[in-house]
Amino acid sequence: MTKYFSEDQSVDVVNARMGGEINPRLREVMTSLVSHLHAFAKEVELTQAEWDLAIEFLTKTGQICTEERQEFILLSDVLGFSMLVDAINNRRPAGATENTVFGPFHVANAPVREYGATISLDGKGEPCHFTGRVLDLDGNPIAGACVDVWSDNSDGYYDVQQPGIQPKWNNRGRFMSREDGRYSFVGIKPVSYPIPDDGPVGKMLGALGRHPYRPAHMHFLVTAEGYETIVTHTFVGEDSYIGDDTVFGVKETLVAPFVRDGEGAWRSDYDFVMVPSLQE
Amino acid sequence: MTKYFSEDQSVDVVNARMGGEINPRLREVMTSLVSHLHAFAKEVELTQAEWDLAIEFLTKTGQICTEERQEFILLSDVLGFSMLVDAINNRRPAGATENTVFGPFHVANAPVREYGATISLDGKGEPCHFTGRVLDLDGNPIAGACVDVWSDNSDGYYDVQQPGIQPKWNNRGRFMSREDGRYSFVGIKPVSYPIPDDGPVGKMLGALGRHPYRPAHMHFLVTAEGYETIVTHTFVGEDSYIGDDTVFGVKETLVAPFVRDGEGAWRSDYDFVMVPSLQE
Repeated sequence: MTKYFSEDQSVDVVNARMGGEINPRLREVMTSLVSHLHAFAKEVELTQAEWDLAIEFLTKTGQICTEERQEFILLSDVLGFSMLVDAINNRRPAGATENTVFGPFHVANAPVREYGATISLDGKGEPCHFTGRVLDLDGNPIAGACVDVWSDNSDGYYDVQQPGIQPKWNNRGRFMSREDGRYSFVGIKPVSYPIPDDGPVGKMLGALGRHPYRPAHMHFLVTAEGYETIVTHTFVGEDSYIGDDTVFGVKETLVAPFVRDGEGAWRSDYDFVMVPSLQE
Repeated sequence: MTKYFSEDQSVDVVNARMGGEINPRLREVMTSLVSHLHAFAKEVELTQAEWDLAIEFLTKTGQICTEERQEFILLSDVLGFSMLVDAINNRRPAGATENTVFGPFHVANAPVREYGATISLDGKGEPCHFTGRVLDLDGNPIAGACVDVWSDNSDGYYDVQQPGIQPKWNNRGRFMSREDGRYSFVGIKPVSYPIPDDGPVGKMLGALGRHPYRPAHMHFLVTAEGYETIVTHTFVGEDSYIGDDTVFGVKETLVAPFVRDGEGAWRSDYDFVMVPSLQE
């Protein structure tokens, strides 16, 4: 192998350049990344004009990012990369609740609310009673689990997207499971919404013939001492985007029942099944 | 294949989402990109923390970019990706001058100077007389070719990196080849220099145990009607970084003679051999 660059040896030449004393995991990750990036360019015989476009796209994607907006996460999401990383890191036994993407709209330390309380502070949207149990793999209740929930409002926006318009903590709250593992709160029946699509990622979706919509869902972050944290949503099955979530977050087991009760209000019952954590 | 995401089917699920009527080349490129990105994440079992780091790195890389600084080009360069794209797009027959990376420091419309004129306007550095011929593959001279040249100054900076310090157009100029194909100009013997290493890419190089230096080189952009444009450098062979250019730009055939003449001045003689262009 020559020490100089050549098309044939490109991967080896680049990877051989890493120092001997570096972090072994960094070496493993970068070796693989360089190998796959070069394989991509070779497979499609990437043109100089396409490379120019890629540089411009990545630059714009970085430059639209602010404290409130993370376009690279959107990019990862719409390429299915976020879901893939989540899947790799959260393989669970059958029967356990599956993870899905965390999303950019969680806010830590939402108010802890009473069993059965409402999170809909603006009074807009169709009320929906969310209930269920937090269980272990054997079906035993887990008491004192924290069920942190958040959703968009009936206009399709999270409170943090509309500061000054929505009340603070609208459609957010934390609920502790009871001794029998039950949680209960009143929110609204979620509605589908587009991810922010006025930037480079939205433009890319357009060029790919894809829409920017996510099917209606309620976010859940379920934590309990001694158990693996669950980051997931429940989905409204009849949503028209259920089969083509733009960030690929839907899993069959996460489609929850949304049914009207005798008085016409919505009700959604869903149990969370937690796996013991390896270290605690 | 289910319509929902799964780790096993991740590539197919994502790629199936593209519309039916999109640009076929875009489809080809994105299909391959998604396939290789997912293969990378699977191969190394990328962790959530590593993904977080990648998002942060890409964001910072975008945000340090300005009119004068292009950190994503640097990133592409140090991963050997720029050289690979150049190689794929400029395969030439044996005997033709090879390309190398264009680099970010070219400025269009440099002054056209007389045969033999100097480009060193600050008078700093070791004078070097650059000479040679522009030829076709049969060794016939090409008259009226434009030889556009640029280099750093003796401190390792291009004029555009030091506005107000270096004279405008210092170490830059365009020279037309004579009837016998000859070009001639006086510059300085180039010196090695680091690529800008105070940003995310420099930090990455540090973590990889790599230095940010490029071996000394003179840039050439050779154009002539009816021939493929040559974008290349000539390199100083005895430079200590000749074997490990941080952007992988060195090719064996681009190492030029740099020799002292009878009076102690440097001289570098190098012929450019052009390939007829397909379309003209």
